Amino acid sequence: MTTVQTATDPVAEACCTPVTSEALSAEDAQRFAQLLKAVAEPTRLRLVSLIAAQENKEACVCDLTEPVGLGQPTVSHHLKILVDAGILHREKRGVWAYYSIIPGALERVAAVLSPR
Amino acid sequence: MTTVQTATDPVAEACCTPVTSEALSAEDAQRFAQLLKAVAEPTRLRLVSLIAAQENKEACVCDLTEPVGLGQPTVSHHLKILVDAGILHREKRGVWAYYSIIPGALERVAAVLSPR
Repeated sequence: MTTVQTATDPVAEACCTPVTSEALSAEDAQRFAQLLKAVAEPTRLRLVSLIAAQENKEACVCDLTEPVGLGQPTVSHHLKILVDAGILHREKRGVWAYYSIIPGALERVAAVLSPR
Repeated sequence: MTTVQTATDPVAEACCTPVTSEALSAEDAQRFAQLLKAVAEPTRLRLVSLIAAQENKEACVCDLTEPVGLGQPTVSHHLKILVDAGILHREKRGVWAYYSIIPGALERVAAVLSPR
């Protein structure tokens, strides 16, 4: 599995400026809020948590629909938001896409709120 | 200034169970998401950041309206959400209420995403 993080990765961009280190610009506040919003949703928190709880730390939509009690289109929609936010990595293998947490992504989101 | 944290403080309640430590229950996910939503908003991030940037680490609404470019009722509304979430402490002194970040609150919100 390869983990791709580009210069435009939203998590990487937000990584190093905690909100308490200086008065935030409107642009930075917008960017940080968007990143936090990706995880500030009950189903998405559960999906992240379920993926982390898998033995091999990855899951396909087929593993996730039953535990969260939602249909595949809804689960896929939430997974896409987490992928777009730079929290999850998506890898297509055969008929299914497998999702894993990008190493360090949640730590970097947390670091926006609180410096390490 | 006294800092009041009760057993029903939302931040304190969410403090010790990172999302990646086990599969989250629907109830915990709801509670964590609500806490994250309090900060996942551009104006509220800026307010937290502006309060932290004050020399004495506290601010009244009168200090905050101009930098965020919003009226007092809107700023007060956002501050109330942060107080209700257990992020900010509010202390009435004379005609103004003064807001400060509850020590450790942001760190505990961050810890929901990532264990320390």
